[in-house]
Amino acid sequence: MLPYMPPGNDIEFVLYDLFDAETEWAQIPAFDSFDRDTVRAIVTECGKLARDVMAPLSQSSDEEGAHWNDGVVTAPEGFKDAYAALAAGGWLGVSGNPEFGGQGLPKMLTASLEEMFWGANTNLWLYATLTVGAAICVDAHADEDTRRLYLPKFYSGEWTGAMALTEAHAGTDLGLIRTRATPRSDGHYSITGTKIFITSGEHDLVKNIVHLVLAKVPDAPAGSRGISLFLVPKYIPGDDGLLGERNGFESASIEHKMGIKGSATSVINYGDAIGYLIGEPNQGLACMFTMMNYERLSVGIQGLGLAERAYQMSSSYAKERVQGRVPEGSRVANTDADAIVGHPDVRRMLLTQRAYNEGGRAFSMYVGLQLDRAKYAPIEAVREKASGFVDLLTPVAKAFITDRGLECTLLGQQVFGGHGYIREWGVEQLVRDVRIAQIYEGANGIQALDLVLRKVLRDGGATVGELIDDIRQTEVPERYTAAMDEALNAWQEVTRWLCDSAPSDSNLPGAASVDYLDVTGHVLYAWMWARMAGVSGSTDKRYVADYYFAKLLPRYYSLVASIRGGSASLMEPSSDWF
Amino acid sequence: MLPYMPPGNDIEFVLYDLFDAETEWAQIPAFDSFDRDTVRAIVTECGKLARDVMAPLSQSSDEEGAHWNDGVVTAPEGFKDAYAALAAGGWLGVSGNPEFGGQGLPKMLTASLEEMFWGANTNLWLYATLTVGAAICVDAHADEDTRRLYLPKFYSGEWTGAMALTEAHAGTDLGLIRTRATPRSDGHYSITGTKIFITSGEHDLVKNIVHLVLAKVPDAPAGSRGISLFLVPKYIPGDDGLLGERNGFESASIEHKMGIKGSATSVINYGDAIGYLIGEPNQGLACMFTMMNYERLSVGIQGLGLAERAYQMSSSYAKERVQGRVPEGSRVANTDADAIVGHPDVRRMLLTQRAYNEGGRAFSMYVGLQLDRAKYAPIEAVREKASGFVDLLTPVAKAFITDRGLECTLLGQQVFGGHGYIREWGVEQLVRDVRIAQIYEGANGIQALDLVLRKVLRDGGATVGELIDDIRQTEVPERYTAAMDEALNAWQEVTRWLCDSAPSDSNLPGAASVDYLDVTGHVLYAWMWARMAGVSGSTDKRYVADYYFAKLLPRYYSLVASIRGGSASLMEPSSDWF
Repeated sequence: MLPYMPPGNDIEFVLYDLFDAETEWAQIPAFDSFDRDTVRAIVTECGKLARDVMAPLSQSSDEEGAHWNDGVVTAPEGFKDAYAALAAGGWLGVSGNPEFGGQGLPKMLTASLEEMFWGANTNLWLYATLTVGAAICVDAHADEDTRRLYLPKFYSGEWTGAMALTEAHAGTDLGLIRTRATPRSDGHYSITGTKIFITSGEHDLVKNIVHLVLAKVPDAPAGSRGISLFLVPKYIPGDDGLLGERNGFESASIEHKMGIKGSATSVINYGDAIGYLIGEPNQGLACMFTMMNYERLSVGIQGLGLAERAYQMSSSYAKERVQGRVPEGSRVANTDADAIVGHPDVRRMLLTQRAYNEGGRAFSMYVGLQLDRAKYAPIEAVREKASGFVDLLTPVAKAFITDRGLECTLLGQQVFGGHGYIREWGVEQLVRDVRIAQIYEGANGIQALDLVLRKVLRDGGATVGELIDDIRQTEVPERYTAAMDEALNAWQEVTRWLCDSAPSDSNLPGAASVDYLDVTGHVLYAWMWARMAGVSGSTDKRYVADYYFAKLLPRYYSLVASIRGGSASLMEPSSDWF
Repeated sequence: MLPYMPPGNDIEFVLYDLFDAETEWAQIPAFDSFDRDTVRAIVTECGKLARDVMAPLSQSSDEEGAHWNDGVVTAPEGFKDAYAALAAGGWLGVSGNPEFGGQGLPKMLTASLEEMFWGANTNLWLYATLTVGAAICVDAHADEDTRRLYLPKFYSGEWTGAMALTEAHAGTDLGLIRTRATPRSDGHYSITGTKIFITSGEHDLVKNIVHLVLAKVPDAPAGSRGISLFLVPKYIPGDDGLLGERNGFESASIEHKMGIKGSATSVINYGDAIGYLIGEPNQGLACMFTMMNYERLSVGIQGLGLAERAYQMSSSYAKERVQGRVPEGSRVANTDADAIVGHPDVRRMLLTQRAYNEGGRAFSMYVGLQLDRAKYAPIEAVREKASGFVDLLTPVAKAFITDRGLECTLLGQQVFGGHGYIREWGVEQLVRDVRIAQIYEGANGIQALDLVLRKVLRDGGATVGELIDDIRQTEVPERYTAAMDEALNAWQEVTRWLCDSAPSDSNLPGAASVDYLDVTGHVLYAWMWARMAGVSGSTDKRYVADYYFAKLLPRYYSLVASIRGGSASLMEPSSDWF
């Protein structure tokens, strides 16, 4: 299999040429040490680790899978050493709180590092990413002692994290969970219940695994307002961080999945496990939401990382594979056939990948920039505005990037013809591995509902309007201004139409949501492309921008028409009819 | 896993209510014995076999896979008996030539039988379908003795067929093949070379396997004009049909694939194997084309069969799974949540499947009807017109139905949320199994090129125009006439634009082909839906037709815009740039 090629140059292009990170970070005291040389060193080292340590284990981990034996879960061959290398390099703490040993890198930068980790080896990175999420949650909501005890262990990679939310009957609707938290005499809780789909809930990579578990305290209100969050470590640490007694939970089995087979996904049984309340009782969902914007962006980036890998593989194959004659007649003497990269339809498949991948890289880093501003910008108005954009754009980043991730890995596979279906070539694994990103961390349909109900309708389209104003104020090359205007008008009008129509049609938001998210993503990527093409001397970007505006941006025409098609045809049949 | 539910009622609806099979078949002497009772018995028995014998082995065959051991290939557990049941029921000969023991059923009917076979167990049906194709080819091109020897064995299921076309370096471009055919002293040929991707090239289900092999005779012209077709049986039969000596080929390995794991796909080494020329030397590709229209339609139907299964599973799940509250407020007392079938976005996923599946069933049977007319209609003008439609519609049937097949199995999987990613639930297998249908039997991009270059541009859009005239003459319910007209106009205009523009832009056909095929499919399905909704009393169809016209037909807007986006943005970068 082709080595993974870290896109370091393009990351620097997005950071500096597109988003002017130097000016941006100069305004934020926490970031003023991140000069160009430092950032280049970080991006380069990350790329090397991704390429040399992580990527070579991706395919073998898929073939081998994770192992379960009487509650003991073993990661695939080589993962233990590779994870140790990730930990030793400090890569688990890049976005961590410096007060507790984290490195406090800007999210705009760590978004790009995550892309490389996901792209090189999604199976391995899954053992790490939940740790990052758990750390954010503990940092935001746990008390000082808990933070001091746990955060350095997370950031150093010594312990990993896991999120235990889903139960067999309760996935999207967490209000239905049944796991109970009973108060103990020592002020803590006793956790009992069964959780499923627990990524890295049990494994052999590190000595301790810290679960964040949603459960219900006695007499909790019904539904999602009665959920509390508990920290449940596999081994209970003393105040000195030394591991004590084993806690009362174990892996009942691991799931057999379509993909991410090297990632161990456990069913976990909690039987009177000691749990430490994080935050206030019944405020568990709110605590989870703190890290959700970060986690959802990260899962979006999974889609990007794998799609970038598919592009690298398929473009390389298309340049080597000879088959048929290009329409203009071959320019290669003494050959029977031309490289398929010359065929217009193969170029369609390659350019679509380029357009959505590089568009996705810019967009994901733009969302990272907004997260940074929301947290660190010195001016409150800037923080508030960015915070609104984060809320608006997070579901788009999660769903749109992963939807395009599936589309692009499928295109990459298609370029390989029959060989794309054969496991040895490695590209079909990307399709299977990316598919989960559309499902977990809130299925993409749920992201679309979140976008329409909470982020658009709730403020009557005000935040969308603010973003559109920002976009209109950006200078873009003249060749794209008309199409850009038309797209913005269409987005604005359909937003207004939704806001006007939803009050009298309660089914409309759900009927329109997936299409609406798709319109939003396509317009935002157009903005990214127009801006990238506008960077002086960027012929590479101009090529792809031209393609994007000619071939992909027009997708919103149909989506807008479908939105305006309303909800009636969806709701007329009775439920039994289906 | 849910039992497979044969769609017998809908098949009869399409046959009789939509396409008036009684009148149609009354005009064709070969079909006049197929009265309603006979047809119902056939459809019912086929459905029972699919449901009771084939479907229960689908998931286990995926888990187990096929086995290779030193050239001996073993199909998954249970396949031998199930195949024997297929053979004993005469199902391999349903479309066969009655002169040699076939049943000569109309293709409009066998298309629907194939849907059930594919849907129930694609892995098993793959051992059968190549036999059907081989029989068509032998019937059309072999001499009388060969037909008399081989056809009854194919139709009875006693021997199976295989197609050996692809070589590692020659897939789409068969002109590049290197397998040699050297004349022997007995007038036959000696075949030497290596073929890959040979579905059912070796297995243990029957005693003899008959390969149709493409190879080059000495001094053959270069490229696809120098390919000849040979019949190469595993055991060489005497004139009495008794098996003699083993021929000189063997399975070097079987492929490890993303899906259809129960189907054994061999690499075959031919070493001086005896081959019997079929047709004239260097006319091999033309001989293969005879069966290609049938095979490509059949592979299209694979997409339909699997997507129908995904709908059955996901609609059943959506009615059972409770999660969240429906927007209108629950009508179910004393519950915590509603069945997800009430959520608009889940209905979107289910109705999209319904619309493309039932549209695909009607369309595939329509193409079957054209095949029947082309072969059997008493009036020559009718045969010729139908033959033109077959050529035009075959690539659409192959590519559009399988593209929608992937889309719909993905939607079915998405309805299951996280459970859809878990192998035990069975729906993820459908995604993996359907994916190959977009790749093999001519990748879908090649189908689109075939459509645009050979079927549209070559006659300047005349056949498309003829079909559009037919469509305009069909009466459809008034609620759809405006949208139908608009779609036909758009299709007609973009066809004309392509015909006008292609002569001065050799890259345009390849740049536009996939989008053009997609437009064609969407307009044709609109026709199917409008007609189905027009059948008196068909409320079921009216529901789905309303949905199709509101939500799916508008997809052509974007596709037309993308076509008109031209080829420039595709061709500007150099090949090395990718």
